[in-house]
Amino acid sequence: MTNLFGEFFGTMVLCIFGCGVVANCLLSKSKAEGSGWLTIVTGWAMAVMLGVFSAIATGAPQADLNPAVTFAKMFLGVYEPGHAVVTMLAEIAGGIAGATIVWLAFLPHWEATEDKGLKLAVFSTAPAIRNTFSNLLCEIIATAMLVIGIFAIFSKPVGGLAPGFGPYLVGMLVWALGLSLGGPTGYALNPARDLGPRIAHAILPIAGKGGSDWGYSWIPVLGPMIGAGLAVIVAKAAGML
Amino acid sequence: MTNLFGEFFGTMVLCIFGCGVVANCLLSKSKAEGSGWLTIVTGWAMAVMLGVFSAIATGAPQADLNPAVTFAKMFLGVYEPGHAVVTMLAEIAGGIAGATIVWLAFLPHWEATEDKGLKLAVFSTAPAIRNTFSNLLCEIIATAMLVIGIFAIFSKPVGGLAPGFGPYLVGMLVWALGLSLGGPTGYALNPARDLGPRIAHAILPIAGKGGSDWGYSWIPVLGPMIGAGLAVIVAKAAGML
Amino acid sequence: MTNLFGEFFGTMVLCIFGCGVVANCLLSKSKAEGSGWLTIVTGWAMAVMLGVFSAIATGAPQADLNPAVTFAKMFLGVYEPGHAVVTMLAEIAGGIAGATIVWLAFLPHWEATEDKGLKLAVFSTAPAIRNTFSNLLCEIIATAMLVIGIFAIFSKPVGGLAPGFGPYLVGMLVWALGLSLGGPTGYALNPARDLGPRIAHAILPIAGKGGSDWGYSWIPVLGPMIGAGLAVIVAKAAGML
Amino acid sequence: MTNLFGEFFGTMVLCIFGCGVVANCLLSKSKAEGSGWLTIVTGWAMAVMLGVFSAIATGAPQADLNPAVTFAKMFLGVYEPGHAVVTMLAEIAGGIAGATIVWLAFLPHWEATEDKGLKLAVFSTAPAIRNTFSNLLCEIIATAMLVIGIFAIFSKPVGGLAPGFGPYLVGMLVWALGLSLGGPTGYALNPARDLGPRIAHAILPIAGKGGSDWGYSWIPVLGPMIGAGLAVIVAKAAGML
Repeated sequence: MTNLFGEFFGTMVLCIFGCGVVANCLLSKSKAEGSGWLTIVTGWAMAVMLGVFSAIATGAPQADLNPAVTFAKMFLGVYEPGHAVVTMLAEIAGGIAGATIVWLAFLPHWEATEDKGLKLAVFSTAPAIRNTFSNLLCEIIATAMLVIGIFAIFSKPVGGLAPGFGPYLVGMLVWALGLSLGGPTGYALNPARDLGPRIAHAILPIAGKGGSDWGYSWIPVLGPMIGAGLAVIVAKAAGML
Repeated sequence: MTNLFGEFFGTMVLCIFGCGVVANCLLSKSKAEGSGWLTIVTGWAMAVMLGVFSAIATGAPQADLNPAVTFAKMFLGVYEPGHAVVTMLAEIAGGIAGATIVWLAFLPHWEATEDKGLKLAVFSTAPAIRNTFSNLLCEIIATAMLVIGIFAIFSKPVGGLAPGFGPYLVGMLVWALGLSLGGPTGYALNPARDLGPRIAHAILPIAGKGGSDWGYSWIPVLGPMIGAGLAVIVAKAAGML
Repeated sequence: MTNLFGEFFGTMVLCIFGCGVVANCLLSKSKAEGSGWLTIVTGWAMAVMLGVFSAIATGAPQADLNPAVTFAKMFLGVYEPGHAVVTMLAEIAGGIAGATIVWLAFLPHWEATEDKGLKLAVFSTAPAIRNTFSNLLCEIIATAMLVIGIFAIFSKPVGGLAPGFGPYLVGMLVWALGLSLGGPTGYALNPARDLGPRIAHAILPIAGKGGSDWGYSWIPVLGPMIGAGLAVIVAKAAGML
Repeated sequence: MTNLFGEFFGTMVLCIFGCGVVANCLLSKSKAEGSGWLTIVTGWAMAVMLGVFSAIATGAPQADLNPAVTFAKMFLGVYEPGHAVVTMLAEIAGGIAGATIVWLAFLPHWEATEDKGLKLAVFSTAPAIRNTFSNLLCEIIATAMLVIGIFAIFSKPVGGLAPGFGPYLVGMLVWALGLSLGGPTGYALNPARDLGPRIAHAILPIAGKGGSDWGYSWIPVLGPMIGAGLAVIVAKAAGML
């Protein structure tokens, strides 16, 4: 059970800092309003690093924090399917909890913000150019690079990392993903990070909110799953695993 | 006694770099004027890292630098209440000293700056939208995440950090807090960092200064204290301690 | 053979993140559009770090990822000329593959972008002021600093690096090069990074693309080669090798 | 003799990257033109880190790279006065060499840039508000924080750093100094970094250059010297040494 709690807690921390940086940069009157893409991707990098530390600290040393990563490990035989599904649910629950805390931290800023799209963007991703095939493709590629990057950093030939440097490098990897591949779809890369906060958006009494864009919601779930599966195939073929 | 001196000295260094980056970005004619939120939060991250190194170097290995952190440790039984209170006073004194040095470093820029609010902002935080409940709530949440983050990074399951990496990661945690949760209140998170410089603002002969906004001053003191206490409860419940 | 595959795979990863960050910042409607030079150079820094980790993970512990670096090592007697040439071809092939994946990740953004020069810039470098002598000189100087920097970081007197810190420091070195010396020519520093993607630009059916500027293409090949050779001479004279 | 060569070479590398980032951000038509303060201070941070690695790699393990640091160590009895003076001269020579290489790397951009003040700014610092007392005071404070920071990071109670992490943390310290205290005077902090390039500016045939502002040149020499001496006194009083 600690394992599931750690995944819940770590994903919650990930979404507090991750959804938080988007709120900070997009919501009206926030001191960081308009601070731009570099601020947002730096915030997400640190969010994932802190999510990993928090998961480890609360009993989940594997620190997946992402159903796509959990799926990749199930595919590799690390988890039983049943355990994987419950882990994914714990991660999504963490996403809901994290987004709820961000809603509270920015409480007076929801009413101050007119644009309903910006409010949704704090919770969930939306594509820059809406196109089912291309959006799915971008999420597949970016998630594959996330999982390949994790496999590379922690691969045997790298020979281990200095204590505490692993979570930091995962943060740097997420920095890279946002910097380089985040523009077309907002780089969900993680169903728990997108679906969890989207559920929170639908449920919470956010001042002046619009719809939760459920029509797009399956892409940041399916794309990362396919990308993670693809990464396992590539990593095996490349001799990383 | 070294312990108290280290807390004073480390908090002084923290406020030299922390108040310094705000002065650098907000005061008129400074070369960094208008450099924006990302510059400010990066400066605060490095400020805390250097404060921690300075405290350790001058005999305070615990390097609290923050009455809220000292309070959390007292709550955990690490300190006697009497010792905790004296430590907090040393920290606040460090905040006064650090802010005074920033006033000197930017000496000709106070007269050059017209906006009295910007001048106060170098010293103390102010809310983006003034609302007692929401501002207090934001400081509680952000400080809880600071203290939970510290507990996570230094938790037993993480298994220790490479030498010198601990203060760096605390800096990264503070980076994350500014990036993600700093917009609504300016993320005081630390009574010594807010009250100390506010006292300096009230005392120093700053050219063309306005009031020190004492009406708000209790929120960045009480909020962090509640947040730190809450973090202890959460961290215990989550099995981190 | 693993050696060649690792060079191919690592250079591919390098160009996915490297060309990716340029696409992210330059292509129309990308969420990072207009994010600026600091974002671009940060992306390239992380790109090289991840390329190094990926190369090591797939059997190329030397992780050159750059024909100029391979040339420098051949010059030092580390490789036979024949092996060096094949390695360079593997690196260029990685550059083609990486750029192709970036084309796919940003698929709807090529048509959305009018400026043909910006589209080429995602793939290959172009000078700020076109001047054969000066452009060549700048690439020579910057590549020499890259190779000297690598020699310095991994030199014997430094005494080794904490596990996993080497690839990170190489990323920081590339950050420095972009920050400080990237403006005149776009800091190719690496024939595989410039020629590989340029070939991809010429071959791929990119919507509304212009010419591939072959007239300039030899400068980011020859310049880095000369720079790397020069670096070997300087490093030897300076006692680093 | 290696010691002197290492100080020369390391300071040269420091000024290639340091003056380079200013050229990159200020000179007309550079791709980084207008990139701003955060880019500049990040470049200087990496410049110092790479200068330190280069000095160590070429036989100067102490890697002062700064006459003010050399002076502080002489004051502490680490060097004989005669050796200190020769070391300072080697550092200044490195500054001249580094600035000369930057002039070459940006060769066509000098004519493209009209503002003579921007051209000088690539080489040497100038105050935001010219005021002898305040400018000197700012350089004293900022240099004192540099030297105190170095003493703190490498102090005995910190207990050593992971291999290779020392030069990185010095870079972070310089990042902090630029972020927080760099605005009033451009944070010379180092006579070799200011006087060396100023001599280069005076000597080199830079297209359309103006005067070298010798009237100000003594402040970024004397200020850092006083600041470093002050830092020794403070660090001793604080029990860091």
